[in-house]
Amino acid sequence: MRNLDENTITDAVLARHEHAPDERLKTIATGLVRHLHDFAREVGLTEREWEAGIRFLTEVGHITDERRQEFILLSDTLGLSMLVTAMAHRKPQGCTEATVFGPFFVDHAPEYRNGDDVANGARGEPCFVSGVVRGRDGEPVSGARIEVWQADADGFYDVQHSDADTHRARGVLHSLSDGRYHFRSIVAVPYPIPHDGPVGRMLEALGRHPWRPAHLHFMITAPGYERLVTHVFRDGDRYLDSDAVFGVRSSLIAQWIHHESGTAPDGTAMTTPFSTLEFDFVLSRSS
Amino acid sequence: MRNLDENTITDAVLARHEHAPDERLKTIATGLVRHLHDFAREVGLTEREWEAGIRFLTEVGHITDERRQEFILLSDTLGLSMLVTAMAHRKPQGCTEATVFGPFFVDHAPEYRNGDDVANGARGEPCFVSGVVRGRDGEPVSGARIEVWQADADGFYDVQHSDADTHRARGVLHSLSDGRYHFRSIVAVPYPIPHDGPVGRMLEALGRHPWRPAHLHFMITAPGYERLVTHVFRDGDRYLDSDAVFGVRSSLIAQWIHHESGTAPDGTAMTTPFSTLEFDFVLSRSS
Repeated sequence: MRNLDENTITDAVLARHEHAPDERLKTIATGLVRHLHDFAREVGLTEREWEAGIRFLTEVGHITDERRQEFILLSDTLGLSMLVTAMAHRKPQGCTEATVFGPFFVDHAPEYRNGDDVANGARGEPCFVSGVVRGRDGEPVSGARIEVWQADADGFYDVQHSDADTHRARGVLHSLSDGRYHFRSIVAVPYPIPHDGPVGRMLEALGRHPWRPAHLHFMITAPGYERLVTHVFRDGDRYLDSDAVFGVRSSLIAQWIHHESGTAPDGTAMTTPFSTLEFDFVLSRSS
Repeated sequence: MRNLDENTITDAVLARHEHAPDERLKTIATGLVRHLHDFAREVGLTEREWEAGIRFLTEVGHITDERRQEFILLSDTLGLSMLVTAMAHRKPQGCTEATVFGPFFVDHAPEYRNGDDVANGARGEPCFVSGVVRGRDGEPVSGARIEVWQADADGFYDVQHSDADTHRARGVLHSLSDGRYHFRSIVAVPYPIPHDGPVGRMLEALGRHPWRPAHLHFMITAPGYERLVTHVFRDGDRYLDSDAVFGVRSSLIAQWIHHESGTAPDGTAMTTPFSTLEFDFVLSRSS
């Protein structure tokens, strides 16, 4: 344990974990130390670069609070989140695919009934969203808990606004007995992930843009089924092929249909332009 | 860029860095993304484990402030700091070896003259430290800036005490024209790294102790020579073979000689027990 050099130190660290009581943690720590050390050796990490890394992580930690999760943003932009999501949800054919959770989920979103306007004052063109929640054999799933959240016309989630205590364009509803759900919200637009912090500077230094294609977030849970965390992406968006967090799946792209005015799907007479979106979800049975 | 899976995502992320303006940053980002993804795939990182990782890093970030640097502690305990130090200081034979910087360095430590007591009230048995700063060819280095910092008899650095604005057992002095330096301080004792935070919990979960063998920190700079950041370790310490941060080098171990009372090396008549330590530093010429 004395006189370790840049090569012998890796096994010395791992030897220190010999008596770790939790085998799984030991496996994870072993993989982490090996790859961390291999990374530093491969690139020949200098002391100044190491210091810059410490400073960067410190800034990521300090900007993170209850409303902003810069570590998730970092994981998302490095593709780690989507990788973990992909490993966790190797879905049977026909089930709705999962995508990244993102940093803007909030606990205790308000409850709504089908037909309600979850926008709750968020700026944007009205959008009527509807669809069916089904199981893989086509059976309707009634009473599924559907949580939806999205950015407004300015590209901001409610938690990014100064009056962040008011939930907007975010809510929970439940599917009806035939599996149907429908609510009113606003049209999703593309937006840059928060790029005024260390992750934004990292993207800029790497020559990357911070934009995500327009999408609605959904988290759907129902007894007997696996939890589904996913997005519905808007067809035609210019960022579908360069999502800053690598979350796009072709099967999750849907049409937002624009109407100049007229009767909305729920019977509302609209004198202003609005859009409609239909999307069905297929849940995987939990094992 | 759509429909990426757990294997194709790595190249997709790297492709996004194609136009990074800084080649070195691109190299580092490439190595980091490859190893981060390989790590996650190898251990089959689950969503819950990923969430636990995000929570852990958030806690490390939130406990870090101007007086506590938990990210350095994390790097130290994972052996990364010592690895980077080893790569940066492949010293010519005969030069004093470098070791980890540690999280307790503070800018603007008080200036002292040779012979002064840098303890400044820190608890501990008096210790008279002296030696010579030389170049590799034996030439004395006069006017070298010697910064020293250490823990007190309770195992705490000044910055860990509630009156952290008072610098204790920490100071800057300069070598004399013959390269000699000497100052009074206190005897170093082994201490646990701060383990009341996330890194402490990590060590416990891995079955590791948080102790470091007794040591004095030195940072020595002189025009024409490479900066030396090192420790002097106390011979006989029980933690020399299991330093929590992997920093021990045999060449840095020295004898603290105990005296019951008598005349100290600087002529002070001591009526209480005290120790003496002699250690010479050999600097490497800067290239």
